[in-house]
Amino acid sequence: MSGELFDLIIVGAGPAGLTACLYASRSLLKTLLLEKGPVGGQVIYTDLIENYPGFPGGISGYELIERIQKQLEDYEYQFLQEEVIDLREVEEVKEVHLSSGKVLKAKAVILALGAKPRKLGVPGEKEFTGRGVSYCAICDGPFFKGEEVAVIGGGNTALQEALYLTKYVKKVYLIHRREAFRATPILQERVKKNPQIEIIIPAVVEEIKGEDRVEKLVYRDLKSNKKRELEVAGVFIFIGHEPETGWLKGKLEMDESGFIIVDREMRTSRPGIFACGDCVSKKFRQIINACGEGAVAALNAEEYIKNLEK
Amino acid sequence: MSGELFDLIIVGAGPAGLTACLYASRSLLKTLLLEKGPVGGQVIYTDLIENYPGFPGGISGYELIERIQKQLEDYEYQFLQEEVIDLREVEEVKEVHLSSGKVLKAKAVILALGAKPRKLGVPGEKEFTGRGVSYCAICDGPFFKGEEVAVIGGGNTALQEALYLTKYVKKVYLIHRREAFRATPILQERVKKNPQIEIIIPAVVEEIKGEDRVEKLVYRDLKSNKKRELEVAGVFIFIGHEPETGWLKGKLEMDESGFIIVDREMRTSRPGIFACGDCVSKKFRQIINACGEGAVAALNAEEYIKNLEK
Repeated sequence: MSGELFDLIIVGAGPAGLTACLYASRSLLKTLLLEKGPVGGQVIYTDLIENYPGFPGGISGYELIERIQKQLEDYEYQFLQEEVIDLREVEEVKEVHLSSGKVLKAKAVILALGAKPRKLGVPGEKEFTGRGVSYCAICDGPFFKGEEVAVIGGGNTALQEALYLTKYVKKVYLIHRREAFRATPILQERVKKNPQIEIIIPAVVEEIKGEDRVEKLVYRDLKSNKKRELEVAGVFIFIGHEPETGWLKGKLEMDESGFIIVDREMRTSRPGIFACGDCVSKKFRQIINACGEGAVAALNAEEYIKNLEK
Repeated sequence: MSGELFDLIIVGAGPAGLTACLYASRSLLKTLLLEKGPVGGQVIYTDLIENYPGFPGGISGYELIERIQKQLEDYEYQFLQEEVIDLREVEEVKEVHLSSGKVLKAKAVILALGAKPRKLGVPGEKEFTGRGVSYCAICDGPFFKGEEVAVIGGGNTALQEALYLTKYVKKVYLIHRREAFRATPILQERVKKNPQIEIIIPAVVEEIKGEDRVEKLVYRDLKSNKKRELEVAGVFIFIGHEPETGWLKGKLEMDESGFIIVDREMRTSRPGIFACGDCVSKKFRQIINACGEGAVAALNAEEYIKNLEK
């Protein structure tokens, strides 16, 4: 594989990367899809997606990804479970360097790198990760049956996951640093109506404490400016995502948070390198626009490759 | 309804408009969806959509739209079957004028106007429309059982529909004005393998002839520069789409073909007016990016409306 020249290498197999792969393989591009983690990315940890058009009543992230993978079975492409650590341009060829030491070559590259959960950055967070601190309700919710937990955040994910957790836990404290939630109003309504959820706003988390596992959460009530403690067995943190684009610094134009800057056709600042999905600079990160961008990135990559041949 | 002030009026109920409506109604915006034709737009005339992520083996356009409509039943919004003929701005309020004479008001507007099939512009095309000339294989294909027909065009739609027509007709002449098709390679392969399809390229249609109904197609073979005739009962024309934005001329920035210019957040040149789907200026028009744009337009409209209130 190291000697081969691919038409297209797609880095990341979340909704954006999978859609790019669907379009590229239908275009009969010699396509390689790379993914370092589980296929589907962040989405597979989402219990219920209600806003992806075509699924009345919603669909789980896992099932949506499974369906897209099944759809891809009709087409030809290669897949490797590997981590990309560098991207270099040697004249018009793109070199994709893997952590295994392999170097792969392609005429064009699509970066569908996704994003990872942002950390709170408070004492106790790192030590108790996996021992009460979690970034995934669907993964860890069932371990907290009948207990009290805290959910940190005010966006769609925080509220959606707080609602989801009430299926397992006795009580959810929903803590957000601002006076109002950012989440879509229908989720705010549901949260306010749910008797198992207690809203604590505005408040900032200061520390997570315990012996072997999480036992207490220390926060500051921003109205009274007083420190308070909650006895909780779990702390679920949903305060947004950040891109994993450090390895691309200096190679592509990025915004101040490290998200890749693209134009309407998903072109980055370098010819033949496209980006799509959660890793690009934009205001709203949704599954449906990640997929749309994946399609556009692949169609533009196809056109770019065709023009190389001229 | 005339006195009411809506948060958002969405013009057009194709994939882009329906997705915008899904997002807007989930955001509890007071939303009105307007459509002059059938809900779903162009898409409902597509027999098989293979590249919308989530449907292995493909889904018909009609079924996809039906599923999105069912998904929308969980949310509140208003729907009117009406034609919009003007959009005016009165300070920050947008006035949407209907052909029925009604004037509706909203804080923000999303234009999801779609596009209509482009005409060939040859003698006989207009006279025989509905009498052998068609722009929709799924609508009219079954009327040509066992007959010979011509398909005009070289893009995805032309090839997809030529393949579809072979289910009904004896033979398809596929005529395209260039030497190569623009369609995605997998469709080109299928067309070339199909014994019922005869490819005639490069060639331009010059006239459609007949008595009551289409009987002959006159074309010029561009290689020999000779006029030739085909005896066909039907002529199916798939040479792209054009927007129906004449009524917006001078109000919004458009490209030379009349497609509306938007930025990455689907903002038009006027604040509070957003556009998405096939009516916007872009390189590739796919259902999945129309949906993605619908979501982005609605989320930005929501933010715009919230900022008005400040």
